[in-house]
Amino acid sequence: MPVKNGKQYIDRINAQTVPVWYKGKLVTGNRSDHLAFAGLMETQAKMYDMQHDPLLAAKMTYASPVDGKPVGLSFLPPKSVDDLERRRISINLWSNMHHGFLGRSPDYMNTAIMAFYTAADLLSDLSPQYAENLKNYYAYCRDNDITLSHAFIQPHASRISGQIDETKDAIAAKIVDRTPDGLIINGAFMMATQGATCDEIFVYPSPSPAPFDDENPFAFAFAVPNDLPGISMICRDTYAADSRYNYPLSSRYEEMDNIVIFDHVLVPHERVFFAGDEEMSSRLFSGSHFHIYAGHQVLCRYIAKTEFILGTIQLLTETLDQVSEAHVIEKTARILAGLETLKALAIAAETNAIPDGRGFLLPAPKPLMAANILYPKLYPDMIDTMQLLASSGMIMIPQEEEFQSDVAAHLNTYLKGTDSTPLERTALFRLIWELGSGSFGGRQTQFERFFFGNSITVSNRLYAAYSKDQTYRELVRSFIAGAE
Amino acid sequence: MPVKNGKQYIDRINAQTVPVWYKGKLVTGNRSDHLAFAGLMETQAKMYDMQHDPLLAAKMTYASPVDGKPVGLSFLPPKSVDDLERRRISINLWSNMHHGFLGRSPDYMNTAIMAFYTAADLLSDLSPQYAENLKNYYAYCRDNDITLSHAFIQPHASRISGQIDETKDAIAAKIVDRTPDGLIINGAFMMATQGATCDEIFVYPSPSPAPFDDENPFAFAFAVPNDLPGISMICRDTYAADSRYNYPLSSRYEEMDNIVIFDHVLVPHERVFFAGDEEMSSRLFSGSHFHIYAGHQVLCRYIAKTEFILGTIQLLTETLDQVSEAHVIEKTARILAGLETLKALAIAAETNAIPDGRGFLLPAPKPLMAANILYPKLYPDMIDTMQLLASSGMIMIPQEEEFQSDVAAHLNTYLKGTDSTPLERTALFRLIWELGSGSFGGRQTQFERFFFGNSITVSNRLYAAYSKDQTYRELVRSFIAGAE
Amino acid sequence: MPVKNGKQYIDRINAQTVPVWYKGKLVTGNRSDHLAFAGLMETQAKMYDMQHDPLLAAKMTYASPVDGKPVGLSFLPPKSVDDLERRRISINLWSNMHHGFLGRSPDYMNTAIMAFYTAADLLSDLSPQYAENLKNYYAYCRDNDITLSHAFIQPHASRISGQIDETKDAIAAKIVDRTPDGLIINGAFMMATQGATCDEIFVYPSPSPAPFDDENPFAFAFAVPNDLPGISMICRDTYAADSRYNYPLSSRYEEMDNIVIFDHVLVPHERVFFAGDEEMSSRLFSGSHFHIYAGHQVLCRYIAKTEFILGTIQLLTETLDQVSEAHVIEKTARILAGLETLKALAIAAETNAIPDGRGFLLPAPKPLMAANILYPKLYPDMIDTMQLLASSGMIMIPQEEEFQSDVAAHLNTYLKGTDSTPLERTALFRLIWELGSGSFGGRQTQFERFFFGNSITVSNRLYAAYSKDQTYRELVRSFIAGAE
Amino acid sequence: MPVKNGKQYIDRINAQTVPVWYKGKLVTGNRSDHLAFAGLMETQAKMYDMQHDPLLAAKMTYASPVDGKPVGLSFLPPKSVDDLERRRISINLWSNMHHGFLGRSPDYMNTAIMAFYTAADLLSDLSPQYAENLKNYYAYCRDNDITLSHAFIQPHASRISGQIDETKDAIAAKIVDRTPDGLIINGAFMMATQGATCDEIFVYPSPSPAPFDDENPFAFAFAVPNDLPGISMICRDTYAADSRYNYPLSSRYEEMDNIVIFDHVLVPHERVFFAGDEEMSSRLFSGSHFHIYAGHQVLCRYIAKTEFILGTIQLLTETLDQVSEAHVIEKTARILAGLETLKALAIAAETNAIPDGRGFLLPAPKPLMAANILYPKLYPDMIDTMQLLASSGMIMIPQEEEFQSDVAAHLNTYLKGTDSTPLERTALFRLIWELGSGSFGGRQTQFERFFFGNSITVSNRLYAAYSKDQTYRELVRSFIAGAE
Repeated sequence: MPVKNGKQYIDRINAQTVPVWYKGKLVTGNRSDHLAFAGLMETQAKMYDMQHDPLLAAKMTYASPVDGKPVGLSFLPPKSVDDLERRRISINLWSNMHHGFLGRSPDYMNTAIMAFYTAADLLSDLSPQYAENLKNYYAYCRDNDITLSHAFIQPHASRISGQIDETKDAIAAKIVDRTPDGLIINGAFMMATQGATCDEIFVYPSPSPAPFDDENPFAFAFAVPNDLPGISMICRDTYAADSRYNYPLSSRYEEMDNIVIFDHVLVPHERVFFAGDEEMSSRLFSGSHFHIYAGHQVLCRYIAKTEFILGTIQLLTETLDQVSEAHVIEKTARILAGLETLKALAIAAETNAIPDGRGFLLPAPKPLMAANILYPKLYPDMIDTMQLLASSGMIMIPQEEEFQSDVAAHLNTYLKGTDSTPLERTALFRLIWELGSGSFGGRQTQFERFFFGNSITVSNRLYAAYSKDQTYRELVRSFIAGAE
Repeated sequence: MPVKNGKQYIDRINAQTVPVWYKGKLVTGNRSDHLAFAGLMETQAKMYDMQHDPLLAAKMTYASPVDGKPVGLSFLPPKSVDDLERRRISINLWSNMHHGFLGRSPDYMNTAIMAFYTAADLLSDLSPQYAENLKNYYAYCRDNDITLSHAFIQPHASRISGQIDETKDAIAAKIVDRTPDGLIINGAFMMATQGATCDEIFVYPSPSPAPFDDENPFAFAFAVPNDLPGISMICRDTYAADSRYNYPLSSRYEEMDNIVIFDHVLVPHERVFFAGDEEMSSRLFSGSHFHIYAGHQVLCRYIAKTEFILGTIQLLTETLDQVSEAHVIEKTARILAGLETLKALAIAAETNAIPDGRGFLLPAPKPLMAANILYPKLYPDMIDTMQLLASSGMIMIPQEEEFQSDVAAHLNTYLKGTDSTPLERTALFRLIWELGSGSFGGRQTQFERFFFGNSITVSNRLYAAYSKDQTYRELVRSFIAGAE
Repeated sequence: MPVKNGKQYIDRINAQTVPVWYKGKLVTGNRSDHLAFAGLMETQAKMYDMQHDPLLAAKMTYASPVDGKPVGLSFLPPKSVDDLERRRISINLWSNMHHGFLGRSPDYMNTAIMAFYTAADLLSDLSPQYAENLKNYYAYCRDNDITLSHAFIQPHASRISGQIDETKDAIAAKIVDRTPDGLIINGAFMMATQGATCDEIFVYPSPSPAPFDDENPFAFAFAVPNDLPGISMICRDTYAADSRYNYPLSSRYEEMDNIVIFDHVLVPHERVFFAGDEEMSSRLFSGSHFHIYAGHQVLCRYIAKTEFILGTIQLLTETLDQVSEAHVIEKTARILAGLETLKALAIAAETNAIPDGRGFLLPAPKPLMAANILYPKLYPDMIDTMQLLASSGMIMIPQEEEFQSDVAAHLNTYLKGTDSTPLERTALFRLIWELGSGSFGGRQTQFERFFFGNSITVSNRLYAAYSKDQTYRELVRSFIAGAE
Repeated sequence: MPVKNGKQYIDRINAQTVPVWYKGKLVTGNRSDHLAFAGLMETQAKMYDMQHDPLLAAKMTYASPVDGKPVGLSFLPPKSVDDLERRRISINLWSNMHHGFLGRSPDYMNTAIMAFYTAADLLSDLSPQYAENLKNYYAYCRDNDITLSHAFIQPHASRISGQIDETKDAIAAKIVDRTPDGLIINGAFMMATQGATCDEIFVYPSPSPAPFDDENPFAFAFAVPNDLPGISMICRDTYAADSRYNYPLSSRYEEMDNIVIFDHVLVPHERVFFAGDEEMSSRLFSGSHFHIYAGHQVLCRYIAKTEFILGTIQLLTETLDQVSEAHVIEKTARILAGLETLKALAIAAETNAIPDGRGFLLPAPKPLMAANILYPKLYPDMIDTMQLLASSGMIMIPQEEEFQSDVAAHLNTYLKGTDSTPLERTALFRLIWELGSGSFGGRQTQFERFFFGNSITVSNRLYAAYSKDQTYRELVRSFIAGAE
């Protein structure tokens, strides 16, 4: 099956049997009818439908090398600047649909699996079969438009245990057995965002050091359908509500986060990308340029989100008659400068793209790493600006039900805007509230801040990329030496 | 009736008949049973009960000058440093009960009405009756332990209308008629926090300029029971939930905000403090030293809240095994310095208290104004610190129901802390989430930022207090002149 | 004469007769021998020599359209992306020579006069002669490699006077008379940086409103040689010193600032670009895209300066053995992200260049405006970082004379670095001190902060560029309307 | 001799024979005539004269317990709140004389030696003679009004050497021999501020770990006259100039920093406070409460400096006609809040003073530690504010010589202020320039930032003071446990 449509997406998820726990109960019935998933699934269904829209299909798909049928452009391994541009255009189309609020928009994991594919040959050092498995899995995802989540991070207790516990009782995720049919995996993973609204899950923990010499049971990567026996998922409380008026963002874009439990799950051999080799774990990861390829997708998303917040702030200051106040000009201009920066970094990433040495064209790493340093500051700063401008007006906001009740007349008298009806004005403030004060917005801020790791981790990527380069040190050394 | 107890507080509110709209429907039944009010009312009931606790009564009450019966200490007009200290001790007792999360803890408005009382004689310039009304009302509140809300701010449209609309159609709150029984008032007020969980409401809008010469219909102040015909209240959505485990803060401390509508309400003459005189409006306000007396109560609340957040951050970093990391030390130390600052400003406010010229002792204004400038930065900075330290651990947190379900065993394995059970560790993170990412926390941040007005307004109070003082300019002038 | 060399540059300045006041005395003798000018003139002489270097000439010059002789590339009005690139390359060569410390590197004013030239035809509305004058002057500068300063800003008292004083006594710069030979100009100008080390001066004040109806005596623009009778210049104290070891920056790059007095100066008609028309003043200015063309030159300079400071900080942290400390990584990475941002904005400015409608190709304005918003923050932040890293080591630093004295042995024992000699290590700290604590560095910080105006002014340029664009507002409006 | 006067202070310093190197040459002649020391010595002479001023003597001195003659109040070991207040008043008198610019105002080291005196008995554990030596030395300083500098920090290379070098060649300061007459000391010390303008020097390095078992040659403390054979001092370049108009601050307050060399100096036994015992080094230091007692003096200085900068900014905004601009109000109000904070912390330190267990009264440590965390941010923030408000007006400022030259008439026309003469207005801007852009100001900023160590060190003092206190953690634990 080539690119799927929205209905197919929903049908597949609804057909899943993986146990999903919500507030202590198993989710039953169609997942697409459950408050915690319905809005998001509707949004993603629309996104998949775009791939079939005659006006957009050419911009969103390319011909599969297997059978020539249309597959999603975010699966395309770029070999030219034109490929990078086509990838960007298709990613933008989706980003402008969800305005950047979906951190796990399908193109994110499509890009990820593509990235690992470009490095598959590294696995041949361990076994040609591993390389084959990864290539096959990539082709399977691409040709079946698999919606994928990932599990990279383990709970704190698992990580501690993996580092210090040399016994069999270590609770860090590990291979507990190997059978003719596959590996038996036990452990838990945090933060599989959208776990329950995806088809499959890609598992690739940072391995703890091996407790004994020969093989490291903590080192492995694989991908499996959610439905395998022994897998279960636990949800946090949902921030979604069903009124699009009252909760314009969470009713559309709330992505559930999950803890995923692997309780002695049998992972078939053909789905294993490597196992037992700690060194390969980091070699494949860095060799895949995951952070660079994904960083390109993420930057497109950043831009869409920034534009949306900018528009919101522009409408806010118009409504408050403050467009010409000095502090509004200064605060807004910093967001504008941020938007220009993101757009320029995207241009630079493509303009300075470099061959990866394996036949693919890698977007320039440094501008993308810079974006990953800047946005975790820019995003909260924008929200901060919005909060400061909205001030106490962000606190007391009625809901749509009031406008249909006996007090509607009072609201229509007292809540009108200069150029907007009371209902429109209130809708704007509900959006601002969700973004700047509600639980959905709270998670967005935290999510953007730690998207690719904490500040040190993200800083260190760019720092390391510069550390071997003596250019600027040499320049100052020769200046000091008076050579000028 | 002297100080009331919790049951009396609840019974009075439940007996109210004022129409309260929540999500388009009238609230029916006991307000204390409604999700939006129950938790808060239970908390405030406990607070009122403290006044009857034999161990605390002496610290929380004093003898009414009318009949010697015990009345709340926050009503006491201070005449000595000892009075200030007694006020502070009683306010601290309540603040440490609600950890500073109640912006409208009853002592706030008790203090406010006391402040206006100290300036009542200013009203004699208009009419001795006005002064008498205000004094009587203060005594009534004190001797009946009235729970009061206030309405100072009007909706944006009303303010605009008041400034530009010279016709009778102006929607700014105004006196539309005067009858033998009282004034007829029409208009709407924003942000009567806790309106529906109080007995009465104190109304004192900033008057727009008079549209015609003789009397300004926008200038007035009065206080009335919530139940008067023509008053109605509109709620925002509640952030409260009933699980104390899942929502430890909002289940206890969620204060509802209201829009209050006055639809041709008859306000009895004896409840009017002045009417028609624009100049008196600002004269009484500044003469009452409202921001100073209230600022003293608010500072006690700030300290309690800061201590609670400090404790939360200390537990968080312990749980994450990060107490000796440099960035944790630096970030925590800034909060510690903030706490020391607040405590020192409180000491300075009492140490440097000044006679108000009318027989009362005013806490030193400048340290309190400084606190009001600092806390709207310190509070968000503390939350920011907590968010940065909690990082992605703040996103995926299960709820108590999971610990009672079939997946509990998994959670008990994977979510344990170093020195805490999985249930305790999760409880800490739920608290952190509510404070740093949930809707309750979002409102708290916004509320603290704009408690006494926006940054310019708050800055200007201290700036104005210094502007006439030539000391430091003179010092530099004489330095420049070389007189040293 | 085509591009000049260093000796020619120096000879021309030394031949000047304009009175230059330094510390209350007239500068006599060769200006190139005076402490306040010597280092800078030597640096600029080297820069002019580069135009004659066989290896660089092709990158720094192009053939004059008049006679085909080589003229400076920064005079080239760009008509293609290739032209923009050639301009950039030549600007970079000079920027990497002075490491961005010369705010008035000759390419800055070369670019400015080129910008005004592209808009010369606007002047024909007033008089074809004005347009002709401007074109002729541009060609004169280009073909004679004129070193130019500018005077746009008047002293505070002049500006106040111009706004309020309707009498003939207004001290704002103005036309006091018109004679057959030219205009008689009286007034003072602030901040003609490098006034005394340039050939000519371009004068273009922001005109005050006309005090009477017909002609505005405050509105004019012209350019004249420094030597005209009635012109005089006043210097501030110099920050330069002659030891390159002790003062590595100021001994090379100290640009003197001047107040320039016009005391009834006769400005020949052929050097007047317009006079008397207030509206033309702003029309020519904005029509010239001065801030955009100059912004392109400035951005190249920013990049060179950032690279130099980065190298300095890298050497500093190496010397202190701190390259792997978390706070060093975070702080340095922010500078790296800043550098990537500047480079990306430069690429975007060229990639998205737009025709100006008059046959020239304008670099994209928005990325350049963004750079002008970002750098006045980035630069002080970098200096701040350097100060925090250097800590108290930046205070007690000996000078080269000590290393030649009897105490040298002690210094050689106690001041050695891990990988550097005591003399090298001390040289690095002297550089850091000049940049982060000395008077030269203090001026640099202030200069970068206010290069193109204060924060509001600079912010407003980008804000205005976005204000008519409804794209993002429309996007949010349609989102709110639920059209998605 | 009891309190000395200015002349006595100068005579003693001029009589010194210690070799002082300035720019590679030995300073000869009277030190009070040398540009690098003259201004400061004149200022300090005036300060000492204040002790003899009949109007001030009672506030600045107390009777020596030895002979009843007046000695400086900053030597007084406080035993009561009244003592703390008397100390504060005397410190304020000097601070208001030098406006906080003297980091080594004599009361600083007077306080320091008093602090060590209060802990002298700790030394008895090693030897009663050591305790006696310290007490005697304190009494000697007090009764002879000794002007003291200190040397606590060694050069980077010495510290590295001390940590890693186990040979006799270690260049860390150490005891190289013990003779009947005393210890032979070899080593170098950084940052003896005011070394050359003091009588004696107090040496107390942080000891490196002992390279061998029995005695640690790096562990010692002593005090000696500057004049001992083998001591020499090296200066940095001076920032002072002799014109009080042009350089109002550095001409009065420039404190020279020194490297002090000990080249096999014989330190008499009676001047040694301990030697060889590493553990005693930190025990005496923390036991002395040096940072607390000194912190009290420092906080008085902070307040005086803040007041001076506040006055400067007030005059600046008046001159620029910006007193009612919103950003001026906000920025100034933050400084006002900072000043109120400092004053409140000083009150809290005295109000909450605690007995030290040895008969002395210690100012409350936490408020003082808080001040030491806050000021290294507040000070640069104030300077930043001043820079932003002064903007480009801080760059081009003439000097007094211009006002006595032929161009004076022009300056008098164009540089006049609204309410000030051109000469006065220029004087204000020269002050602002020195503080915000000149070398003197650059050192002040760096000095305040690192006065008591870097941010981690200073943060850790307060953090450690809180770390054992479970109050706030317990409060949150019990909240979570639902005990409320």
